[in-house]
Amino acid sequence: MNSNPTPLEPKAGRESVRRHNLSLVLRAVHEEGEATRAKVAARVGLTRAAVSSLVEQLLASGFLTESGKTFSGQAGRPGTVLKVARTGPAGLGVEVNIDYVSVCVVDLAGTDRVRLTEHLDNRGVPPHEVLGRAARIAGRALESAAEQELRPVGVELALPGLVSAGTVRQAPNLGWSRVAAEDLFARALAGRRPGGPALPVSAENEANLAALAELWFGGLGSVRTFLYLTGEIGVGGAVVLDGELLRGAHGFAGEIGHVVVEPDGPECRCGSRGCLEQYAGQSALLRTAGLDENAGAAGVAELERRARDGDQRAMEALEAAGAKLGRVLSGAVNLLDPDAVVLGGIYRGLMPWLSPAAGRELTGRVVSGLWSRDSGRLRASSLAGDAARGAAALVVRDVLADPVAYAEVARRA
Amino acid sequence: MNSNPTPLEPKAGRESVRRHNLSLVLRAVHEEGEATRAKVAARVGLTRAAVSSLVEQLLASGFLTESGKTFSGQAGRPGTVLKVARTGPAGLGVEVNIDYVSVCVVDLAGTDRVRLTEHLDNRGVPPHEVLGRAARIAGRALESAAEQELRPVGVELALPGLVSAGTVRQAPNLGWSRVAAEDLFARALAGRRPGGPALPVSAENEANLAALAELWFGGLGSVRTFLYLTGEIGVGGAVVLDGELLRGAHGFAGEIGHVVVEPDGPECRCGSRGCLEQYAGQSALLRTAGLDENAGAAGVAELERRARDGDQRAMEALEAAGAKLGRVLSGAVNLLDPDAVVLGGIYRGLMPWLSPAAGRELTGRVVSGLWSRDSGRLRASSLAGDAARGAAALVVRDVLADPVAYAEVARRA
Repeated sequence: MNSNPTPLEPKAGRESVRRHNLSLVLRAVHEEGEATRAKVAARVGLTRAAVSSLVEQLLASGFLTESGKTFSGQAGRPGTVLKVARTGPAGLGVEVNIDYVSVCVVDLAGTDRVRLTEHLDNRGVPPHEVLGRAARIAGRALESAAEQELRPVGVELALPGLVSAGTVRQAPNLGWSRVAAEDLFARALAGRRPGGPALPVSAENEANLAALAELWFGGLGSVRTFLYLTGEIGVGGAVVLDGELLRGAHGFAGEIGHVVVEPDGPECRCGSRGCLEQYAGQSALLRTAGLDENAGAAGVAELERRARDGDQRAMEALEAAGAKLGRVLSGAVNLLDPDAVVLGGIYRGLMPWLSPAAGRELTGRVVSGLWSRDSGRLRASSLAGDAARGAAALVVRDVLADPVAYAEVARRA
Repeated sequence: MNSNPTPLEPKAGRESVRRHNLSLVLRAVHEEGEATRAKVAARVGLTRAAVSSLVEQLLASGFLTESGKTFSGQAGRPGTVLKVARTGPAGLGVEVNIDYVSVCVVDLAGTDRVRLTEHLDNRGVPPHEVLGRAARIAGRALESAAEQELRPVGVELALPGLVSAGTVRQAPNLGWSRVAAEDLFARALAGRRPGGPALPVSAENEANLAALAELWFGGLGSVRTFLYLTGEIGVGGAVVLDGELLRGAHGFAGEIGHVVVEPDGPECRCGSRGCLEQYAGQSALLRTAGLDENAGAAGVAELERRARDGDQRAMEALEAAGAKLGRVLSGAVNLLDPDAVVLGGIYRGLMPWLSPAAGRELTGRVVSGLWSRDSGRLRASSLAGDAARGAAALVVRDVLADPVAYAEVARRA
């Protein structure tokens, strides 16, 4: 959230300069948490007068609030404290996954304010129906948001597949191929809010958004370059380099779940054989441990319970999956040289049984020797980071980057 | 070579502004090939007067030349044509590889002007001795350069290992560990040029530099995101994202030769087992084909001859190596989503026999489906790009980015 840290010079055109500087001021307050006009001016390098004028506009359009204002209505006094608004403009994140839909509303400060998750099986259901469900759930979350006086100004969809230009090219575990997800969802949501303003909708791979949530809200400290894996029915992955998502040449980077482990292994839904997902995905893990591979979250909880109780088969299944994970991760680390590998989704709770074998592979196979078993570079994701929150926070980041673009929606929403 | 495309505003401090603008003008001429002062002024957005003053300084310190100058000595007339100097400041690249040392002098225009390669076995030789050899060869190349009135102003070492902050952390095939290569080479070179100015020396992984050479001089067209592999005794790799090298968190990215193919495969010099290098490195290829694994370049030529003659064992060896290459590449492509994979080194000549199997793996295992067999994304490197030229060109890029930093060396060199 630190791009464009300096004010633009006037030659760039009056309107675009003001637009840029509005973002500069808004982001300064966002990053400080709270700040006086004087502090903002010092931080962004604009005059007090210029900052005051920008602040007035941001207050009027509901992006900022101030406290400490005197009763006589002397807005803009030096002593008043500015904060980003905790009501009004917000971001809506909608994660459509294989066996759940999770919707999240995040305010401008980045706080998770509404969360609605429904566990349901989206496999084999036509895409427009799945996205219709998601819009219904999103509609309910918008009602909850309205009760808190929050008005989301944009939607980010988190989808478990290859997403490019608003379209899901392929989502093997949902059985989707070339689905115009942004359009379908936007239409379904508009249908639920007749007369309401159309919210801009965009879509992104869910692991990418979970990785951003980890970066923004997890406890990564100084780590800015990492590999993120999320264990679900599929195994999602994302690469973050110096604080930015690696999207690749076509937006399809990070597909670590489809890195081959055993060339002649079981068929994968992606069309290949022996992908990591076939050994370390949720179904494979449950099956190997002797549980029903379709048991979902309850099955994962049971697996964890058994491992904790020392059940041999459960522990062996996790050990074997950990070794395959570690093997693929060692290759990825040799290729990318990240500071850390973060395991999320179902892996978070299963770390005690996955990480010893995964750590052994990393220790033995990473050529730099930096991944010794006690290096702390292999870690569980925080509870704070998930794809729905990352999605909602991405909308907020876009608002902070150009509030003017959202002012009209914010007024009407 | 396009960073900082706009002139700095005066507030940045007079000296640093002038320094920045000198680079801007020099790079404008470099990119145009030849240009008048008027054209440079239009391109960089500075006044004619400012450009003329900057040009005079660049002419005086030997970074630019002009033609079309009148006999009366009216330098700076509007009609004269500027070019970067083809004599004077230049870059020196020194590739120290396992069985050869190759040294290259590149002029400011990027042209390869001197090349000296010696085939010799550096394995098991103490690092200071290997770098002493390299300095001797570099010294001879500098003599050749001097005959062409070229004066290299910096040295870039290309080394087959993990390089960070001037030190080789590990170069398994050379048997090096924690070797202060920059210092050792700088001292050895200074010893051969008593009284001469000390040239700044820096070091980088050789595959990284070969990838840059491919980017700058190969025929990649619009491809800016690619994976580069070079087959040598080791298998080197580099990742280029949107025209920039991926270095990773510690400078160790791109080590695709040590991605595991068979977890229980043969021991690798890196300490792991079953790395790609053990199947697709030069020694493995020669051995599998029934040739002497230490036969070097002659062995590779013989392998190519046999494959061309339809020798069964040679073709099978190449097919098997191609499949392993393709398997590892499919994982890397799933992770990075590049536009192309470029195979260099010994792979270039062996492509007809490696690429069918490699292409099959990529077609079958890349989840995006973008890597169909006829996609043209898997390609041989051009002859123009090698590590020594990339190294020398990197020095030139540094000169173009800040000619003032090199003006003193250029004067004394």
